[in-house]
Amino acid sequence: MTRNPVPHFTPVPLEKAYRLINHGPTVLVSSAHAGVTNVMAAAWSMALDFDPPKVSVVIDKSTLTRQLVESSSSFVLNIPTQAMAQQVLGVGTDSARTVPDKLLKHHVTTFAVDGVSVPLVDGCVGWLVCQVVPEPHNQTTYDLFIATVVGAWADDRVFSNGHWHFDDAQDELRTLHYVAGGQFFVTGASLSI
Amino acid sequence: MTRNPVPHFTPVPLEKAYRLINHGPTVLVSSAHAGVTNVMAAAWSMALDFDPPKVSVVIDKSTLTRQLVESSSSFVLNIPTQAMAQQVLGVGTDSARTVPDKLLKHHVTTFAVDGVSVPLVDGCVGWLVCQVVPEPHNQTTYDLFIATVVGAWADDRVFSNGHWHFDDAQDELRTLHYVAGGQFFVTGASLSI
Repeated sequence: MTRNPVPHFTPVPLEKAYRLINHGPTVLVSSAHAGVTNVMAAAWSMALDFDPPKVSVVIDKSTLTRQLVESSSSFVLNIPTQAMAQQVLGVGTDSARTVPDKLLKHHVTTFAVDGVSVPLVDGCVGWLVCQVVPEPHNQTTYDLFIATVVGAWADDRVFSNGHWHFDDAQDELRTLHYVAGGQFFVTGASLSI
Repeated sequence: MTRNPVPHFTPVPLEKAYRLINHGPTVLVSSAHAGVTNVMAAAWSMALDFDPPKVSVVIDKSTLTRQLVESSSSFVLNIPTQAMAQQVLGVGTDSARTVPDKLLKHHVTTFAVDGVSVPLVDGCVGWLVCQVVPEPHNQTTYDLFIATVVGAWADDRVFSNGHWHFDDAQDELRTLHYVAGGQFFVTGASLSI
C-alpha cells in the first residue's frame, strides 16, 4: 500500500457518484480489518439511490471479503479497466481463504486515502467508498449488502463533469462487464440521444 | 400485443439466466395488471443468485410500474438493443402517470408468451420473467424488489450456449448501458482471458 498521490485521481461530487456505476461495470470490492486487506471481483452490484448515494452488492458468505466487511462495516467499490481484465479474473477466481497471497499473485496493489480506512485499488478509474447500512436479513438471506457512498473519486482522463468519456482516452482505460467463463465485454461506444 | 411467434426467440436454461444481465445492461421493466400494461426503463438491476436464479431491481414509488408490480407480484426484465435507445430513453423519461399513451408515443410494442401473465417487449434480445419475493421492508425503504426468475429467453442471433456473442451479429443488436442525460454506452468488444 502506497501513500503516493495517484495521477488523475479526482473527487466526484457525491450526488454524481451513482454515475460511476450506472452503466453496470464489473467492480472490485476492497476491504480491510485488523491489518488484513482483501480484494474480490463482483459482477453483481448496482446503484440504489441518488443523493445521498446508496449502492448494493452481493458478497458471498464463503469469502474473506464477507468477513472483513462484516467486521469493519465498510468497503470500497473500485472500477477496473480493460488493462486489468486478467487481474479482475484472478481475484474473482482465487479465494484468499485458499490463496492467502492472491493480491501478490495477481499483481493487485492498493493505495491509501486520508480519512478512508479501506485501501483503494491501483489502476482503477473509479472508486466509491461505502459504509454498510446494517440489514441482517438481506445479508443472511441474499448475501446482499446495502451501503451509503461517503466518498467518490474518478480518473479524470475518462470521467469528468458527471460523465464517462472513454472515447477521448486510450482504450485500455475502458471499463469491463463480466459474463462468465473468462469472458468480458469492454464498455463500447458512447451513444447520445 | 401480438401472439405471433417472434423470430429467434429461444429458451434459456434457468441456471444460465443470470448471464443475460451479468454484464450490467440497462433493462426495460414490463408489467401488467387488470388490463393495464406498462414499460419503464431501469438502469438499476442486477443478478442476485444463480440457481434458482434471482434478480433485484429498483422501482420508484412514483411509477405506475410500481403499482402494477405490487398488484401482480410479477414483472419481466427485457434487455433492449442499441436500435432501441430512443425508445428506452422515452419510456424512461415519460411516466405513464402523466403520459398515459407513452408506449404508443415511443413505439414500444409487446407480445404474449403462453403461460406468462406479463407481456414481453418486442425488439429486445433477452427476457427474464420474474416472480416477486415479498420483502416489504426493502420495497418500502429502498424501492428494492427481489424476484425469482421463472422463465428466460434470448435472441439466438446474439445469445446461445450461455454466452452473448454480439461480435457475430449486426451492431444494432448490441445491448445498452445508460449513464445519464441521454448518454448510453453500447456493449463493446468481447474480451476472453
